[in-house]
This record gives sequence, structure tokens and C-alpha cells, in this order.
Amino acid sequence: MLYVVGLGLGDEKDITVAGLEAVKGSERIYLEAYTSILTVGKEKLEEYYGKDVVIADREMVESDSDTILANADKVDVSFLVVGDPYGATTHTDLVIRAREMNIPVKVIHNASIMNAIGACGLQLYNFGQTISIVFFTETWRPDSFYDRVKENHQFGLHTLCLLDIKVKEQSIENMARGRLIYEPPRYMTVNQAVEQLLEIEEKRGEGICKPDSLAIGCARIGTDTQKIVAGTLEELVDVDFGGPLHSLVLIGSRMHEMEAEFVKEYAFNAETFNTIVKRDYVH
Amino acid sequence: MLYVVGLGLGDEKDITVAGLEAVKGSERIYLEAYTSILTVGKEKLEEYYGKDVVIADREMVESDSDTILANADKVDVSFLVVGDPYGATTHTDLVIRAREMNIPVKVIHNASIMNAIGACGLQLYNFGQTISIVFFTETWRPDSFYDRVKENHQFGLHTLCLLDIKVKEQSIENMARGRLIYEPPRYMTVNQAVEQLLEIEEKRGEGICKPDSLAIGCARIGTDTQKIVAGTLEELVDVDFGGPLHSLVLIGSRMHEMEAEFVKEYAFNAETFNTIVKRDYVH
Repeated sequence: MLYVVGLGLGDEKDITVAGLEAVKGSERIYLEAYTSILTVGKEKLEEYYGKDVVIADREMVESDSDTILANADKVDVSFLVVGDPYGATTHTDLVIRAREMNIPVKVIHNASIMNAIGACGLQLYNFGQTISIVFFTETWRPDSFYDRVKENHQFGLHTLCLLDIKVKEQSIENMARGRLIYEPPRYMTVNQAVEQLLEIEEKRGEGICKPDSLAIGCARIGTDTQKIVAGTLEELVDVDFGGPLHSLVLIGSRMHEMEAEFVKEYAFNAETFNTIVKRDYVH
Repeated sequence: MLYVVGLGLGDEKDITVAGLEAVKGSERIYLEAYTSILTVGKEKLEEYYGKDVVIADREMVESDSDTILANADKVDVSFLVVGDPYGATTHTDLVIRAREMNIPVKVIHNASIMNAIGACGLQLYNFGQTISIVFFTETWRPDSFYDRVKENHQFGLHTLCLLDIKVKEQSIENMARGRLIYEPPRYMTVNQAVEQLLEIEEKRGEGICKPDSLAIGCARIGTDTQKIVAGTLEELVDVDFGGPLHSLVLIGSRMHEMEAEFVKEYAFNAETFNTIVKRDYVH
């Protein structure tokens, strides 16, 4: 059996009891470590499980999944995913591959940012499609997500923005020379995401994410050090959210009064927040 | 401390280790039992926790929350929610009330249908807003959700439809006579939801959920008896999905090829499914 086990968002104790039982009964355990991170590392998990854990990087999962799935029709193998197993496309691939090999698969669900984001005070059913914001480079500054935000914006829906993670990336030079030297991991901050959004708004000028549009910056949702700050994009540029992972919610104009009441507890500046809410949002 | 603990979607073992610790250390434990259900009842939970559990019905949570929160500034109280704590508006109210009373609140997240629905094979970021479908009565057949589906449909996004639950409802006669006699619980089936959607399509005629529109019926997601069937609405009218809870996903036209590949494994009729996918969906 292949167990695909969601670990939730915080530390080693956010696994479910059923998930922990699957892990403890598994012959091999892999940890997917490139789409998200916990607040604890592999060593802590190994200590907690009393078992070895193998880090599965992108290359292994995408190009060498047969190693993960080897004899999983006979023994139990656990593939651990931060958040919920169906949060990233890449895990779906693994399940499809297992199916092709007639390996039984059991998915053990857990919280992911896709539902835990409710902690920011907005109702999940008022969110439109989710977008991902990638790190801009000197030469690559893609803005296709702006169109998605615009679609949500048109109907007054909130937008959850997932922020880029770069783990085990090579510099162009090292890649060219075939040197397996990796850059330190990078996690996009709320500040960086907001700067990029404002840059694109400047360019496109369709009024979708203006300096005075309201948003909610979220850091380490579901952990003990969770930080949530609501404010205008301009205000959020300079707020220190601390360590990763960060995410950002763009508030839709259809915000309900009760949502606003909850969110204002997180306001960077309650007065500004209330004024803008009354002017542009809750009607 | 008020712990608001998500129980996940399956049985007693879908609680997280952190959640279980909070429950075991709590002086009082309430189970919210009107927005969703587990596959096990209160007795099984009591046995598993080694503690008494009090059922909190809608009246208690909405009108008598101070009983739940009593002295939670001094002792630990757990409020258990099937799925994730932020899945329903009513739990947000409780958190706001606790804040007003200066009671510290800790939310322990878990899977909810809002993210576990990824099990159907569609990617979560391609979903638009979520809708709820309520039971029609002879005189009340609301169709406002049709407009929401239409909004999602316009951008080719998928729609998760949450289906109505009626627990502890009184008949009009019993209510009028002040008799505290309750009707047996009712859980909307995929079949009923589809029938209602087709009735509204018939009336509105905007081509949003036609008899040959593709959808995915889901039952008991995240449990061992999970059932997923994809097909046209017409096909899903007669599929037996078994016991509650059910939910329904209306597939958006922007469906990606990889999503289609995953979903077709669940097809009621693979041939029909593939034909319609090619004609109206993946481009």
C-alpha cells in the first residue's frame, strides 16, 4: 500500500492519529520537501516516528517515482506531504503512476493552506480561484496571474495567493557547468509579493491591486507563531512577518460585514481599514 | 483556553495528535453536531478520548455560547468541529465571542471538504467560489446559487457544491404547538442535488448545468468507503452513492488535460465522458 499522508501545517504533532499509524507501519518513508515546509525538519520527524525518513526532492518525485513505489504492492510505503496530499499537482502524478502499477493507494488528508486560510477571518466560500506568485527575475516578470485576480475581482471574490518557494535551485552558472551546487532556499515574503503586485498594477493599470486595495498578509498559518496583518497593499509592504511560509489574501469587494468584523482585529491601522472597508467593500 | 479542534472527515482517528492532546487535557468537551458528521458517533469519541462529550446543537452554539465558554479563561475547554474549524460561519462567531471575553483561543486545523475535495482529481486552484444547495420544499425553491455557478462557469472554473443537512429540525406543526419533537436527520444526496440543479436549469435556461454537463458526485470523502463517480448530470441522477455525506463538483470548461486523465478513472461511462470532455472541456 502507498500511503500519501498529509502532515498539516505546523510541527510533528499535526499529523493525524491515522497518519501516524500508517507511518509507523511503513517499511519506507519519504518526505516531499520542495513544495512546502513544516516548522520542524527531517531529524525531528525521524525522532518522533522512531524511523528513518528519506527526503524526496523534485527530481526524485517527478523523474524517479518508481524508486518510491518499488514493491509498494507488497509492503507499506509512506509518502509524506506538508499540508494535504492534494495541494500540489506533483502528488497527483504520483497517485496516477501508482494506479498504473496496480499499487493500492490510501490518502490520509490533513489541513492545508487552502482551508486553514479561513483563519484570516474571511469565509472560504467567498474565495475565487487560487493563484501562485513566482519570484520575478531581471528578465522574467510574468503577470498572467493578474488576469486571474481580475476575474475574482470582477465578482467581488477574495483571492488566495500562494507565494513562491525555491528549494535546491542551481544558479545558471552552476547548471551550465554541471556542478551540483545548490543555492540556499528562498521563500517569498508577503512584502515581496505585494511589491510585485504593485509593479504589475502600475504596468497594467486596471485597478485590481492598487496601493489602497485591502489585503491580508499571513505567515506560518496553523503554527504557534502564526501572524496575520490586514491592511492596504501599501501598508503591507513594510510589515515584518518573520520567517516562512507566507501567503497573501486579496480581499474581494463582496466582503460580508461579519468577515470585516473578524478581519479588523488584525488591522495594521484599524481606522484606515474601517474607512476603506466602508468606502470600497462591505455594502 | 478555548481549543477549537478540527476532527477531519473520517472517524475518531482523523484527529491530529495535537488535537487529541488538547482534548485529553480539557475539562469540558463539546461536539458541534449540526453542520457535518463523522462516520462515528459521540459514544465512539467518548470511548476513544476516555472523556465525556457534550453534543452542542445549533441553539446552544448560536444562542448559548456563554455556557460553552464559561470559565475558559481558567480551564481548558475543547470545541470539536467535524472537518476544519473555519469551515462554517457559526464557529467564527464563537471565536469572536471568546475574544470579546478575553479568552485565549487556539485553533487546531484539520482536513475539510474544502481541500479534501482534491481527491476527485481536479486541482484546488481551479475551483471558483463554493456554493451550498438547500433542500427544496413545496413552496421554497431558491435558485440564487445558480448565479454563483454561472460566475464560475463564465471563467471555466469548477464549483464545489456543499449539500444541505437537516438535523434536529421540527415540523411546522410541532413548532407551532411548541412540541420539542424533532424530525429524523436528512442529508441531501448527490441525486437530489442534481435533480434540483436540472430543475433550475430548465427554468433559467442559461446552459450552466445542462443534462450533459459534466460533474463529479462524491460521497464520504476521506473515509474508507469514499465513493467518487464522474459523469453527466443526467447520468448522476441514478447513481447510488450510499450513506452521507455527499457533495457535488460541477466541472469547469478550463479543466486541464491532467485533471481529465485523473477524473476519467471515476467515469460512470468512460466513452461518454471522453467524448464530452473533448467536445466541451479540455482545449
